[in-house]
Amino acid sequence: MTTNNGTAPYPVGLRRPELAGVLTRSRGSFEDILERSELIVELIGGIEPARDYVLRAMRAGRHVVTANKQLLSQCGDELWQAAHEANVQLRFEAAVAGVVPVVRVLQESLAGAHVERIHGIVNGTTNFILTEMARTGMSYQEALAQAQRLGYAEADPSDDVNGKDAAAKMAILARLAFGVPVRLEHVRYEGIEHITPDDLAYARELGLGLKLIGTAERIDDGLSVRVHPAFLYAGHPLASVAGPFNAVTVESGAITEVTMSGPGAGGPQTATAVLGDVISAMIPPPSVAVTVEPLNLVEDVESAFYLHMEVVDRPGVLAQIAQLLGIQGASIKSVVQRGLGDQARLVMVLHPLLESRLFAACELIGALEVVRSPPRAIRVIEEEFV
Amino acid sequence: MTTNNGTAPYPVGLRRPELAGVLTRSRGSFEDILERSELIVELIGGIEPARDYVLRAMRAGRHVVTANKQLLSQCGDELWQAAHEANVQLRFEAAVAGVVPVVRVLQESLAGAHVERIHGIVNGTTNFILTEMARTGMSYQEALAQAQRLGYAEADPSDDVNGKDAAAKMAILARLAFGVPVRLEHVRYEGIEHITPDDLAYARELGLGLKLIGTAERIDDGLSVRVHPAFLYAGHPLASVAGPFNAVTVESGAITEVTMSGPGAGGPQTATAVLGDVISAMIPPPSVAVTVEPLNLVEDVESAFYLHMEVVDRPGVLAQIAQLLGIQGASIKSVVQRGLGDQARLVMVLHPLLESRLFAACELIGALEVVRSPPRAIRVIEEEFV
Repeated sequence: MTTNNGTAPYPVGLRRPELAGVLTRSRGSFEDILERSELIVELIGGIEPARDYVLRAMRAGRHVVTANKQLLSQCGDELWQAAHEANVQLRFEAAVAGVVPVVRVLQESLAGAHVERIHGIVNGTTNFILTEMARTGMSYQEALAQAQRLGYAEADPSDDVNGKDAAAKMAILARLAFGVPVRLEHVRYEGIEHITPDDLAYARELGLGLKLIGTAERIDDGLSVRVHPAFLYAGHPLASVAGPFNAVTVESGAITEVTMSGPGAGGPQTATAVLGDVISAMIPPPSVAVTVEPLNLVEDVESAFYLHMEVVDRPGVLAQIAQLLGIQGASIKSVVQRGLGDQARLVMVLHPLLESRLFAACELIGALEVVRSPPRAIRVIEEEFV
Repeated sequence: MTTNNGTAPYPVGLRRPELAGVLTRSRGSFEDILERSELIVELIGGIEPARDYVLRAMRAGRHVVTANKQLLSQCGDELWQAAHEANVQLRFEAAVAGVVPVVRVLQESLAGAHVERIHGIVNGTTNFILTEMARTGMSYQEALAQAQRLGYAEADPSDDVNGKDAAAKMAILARLAFGVPVRLEHVRYEGIEHITPDDLAYARELGLGLKLIGTAERIDDGLSVRVHPAFLYAGHPLASVAGPFNAVTVESGAITEVTMSGPGAGGPQTATAVLGDVISAMIPPPSVAVTVEPLNLVEDVESAFYLHMEVVDRPGVLAQIAQLLGIQGASIKSVVQRGLGDQARLVMVLHPLLESRLFAACELIGALEVVRSPPRAIRVIEEEFV
């Protein structure tokens, strides 16, 4: 893309972009386009050849606008280093949450804030599936099939439903918010494949919503970045985000929290995000993301949990389970027990405890003779806002 | 404020701000500070002397960061012209919705989008009062007193509760979104002083929330900017914004809608917004808001309405009222009638119609012998999202 000083009807001083050329699988030459451009827009996706083109463009002094989350989350160090050395802009609003302006807001608006935590719904496919399951009571498989029919899920939805897509986006956001070199491989993730209509029914009973939540947060001197299904109280700013929408909440002591939401995907949305970046890049120079802190990952974090167990309906069962939880320091916030013939279904919400201790307790509980199957554990996000 | 090229511990190439001086009523000299600064932060508020200082600073080639909504909404043309002529930055994120980054997002992220409408909750005092009235059933006066006790309303809350503060902010947002020279005097506004607990009770019955909503929208070739209480359906992104929070929804064909929310006021929030602007200004140059379209204000717009009437409980009353509504082209969406001795309370929701026609119908209805008092009319925002 090249630019000109605009003449009428553009006001004096504004610049007007001109398309220098388009490269697709079947036509165009990268060298030709590079030669004639000031700025390259990369929408190929995946690692190669996108990585090669982006690095060559920046090393040749061209600004780059990209929507490539795989590339940014896996090769970020190399890309930012190249942008920094060449003193060019690398902009990527469309890579995370589409037109929801979380990248720019973290880089610029909140540049003066000490960010403590980010919570995000950054995958529209899984949010659509969970919304449909909650709304209709349908199974995960049925909701996935419907998402595919409506174009909200791809033919191979693996990276969406297993949490990997959200993990890549959270790696990018964590790098921006905390100035540390986070990569996809540092993000722990779980998907939604094992969520049942029962989980959503119990959530409703407890006044909770269930979302696939990405979290990046400071813990003491370290950082935890993770993606997993989590229950949210109705007052949480992310609880009302429905369908294929994305949303991100940024928390900081100084600002309490700021939430941004909107469509996470779609051609016109991606184009709008890319165009915003192109316009900004044409008014140089930018803030290149510089990493200034070493990475100190925290592997074991505190969470509140919901536990779902099928147990024998017999006196003393709850006491046995409560004792095992107590040994691990888990404290019970609420319990719902429901008889089903000679079985019972036990649903608990626990106060926050270290995940390692919760998993240890679940292993012990799963081994009890009176427990039919290992407990199902889902995290609960406890903060209530305003 | 002056800047230096930072040395360690700042990465090479970053700049570090230094305070050149502070001007208050009792100390400091504007000339001294101007001389020694590259950038002036104006947090005086009001028109003079803020206007004089800001204009002198920009004409002397200094960037300006301000939180002054009065100044921007009343003297915007002069300010933007001065910034443009001096080629300096005028940044003002803190002037609208505090740290919620709506100014930057409209100027930069959505620079490539054709914005069609903005809806905003941009006054925290009124949103707190309406939230408390809805939550507790208390009166407007009681909720206002509580807001004052908790520091959410000032001793003289007039400009907050009558809608003028929100109108100033909507003038600023309309200028950014549509590139037209909107000033406070162009914005029609109503406040919340006349909202009763009854309105909120009926709202709940109808599944609606009641908010003070600012609207700026394109209508054919014109523009309407206004502030008034309005009912929202539960699915609207602004419906769940509670307490002193602010939120803005930007709608455009290409992006559907993007919503941003967060604390609208508070010292640390304002400081964070100002600091984000200072950091951006130190990495020059900016996008100066250039107005490229003439202003074509639309005075009469379509709205859906809720009507609340005290009537004589007698056959034929509803028919009389419906006939008068029909003459003005109003179509009834739902009716709730409730007997109270020999009186009845009639609550209706109407499909959208021109406001002038609704007000004409209300005048005729108020003159009916069977109607005890003029109808109370409150707008309903109809869009349901996702």
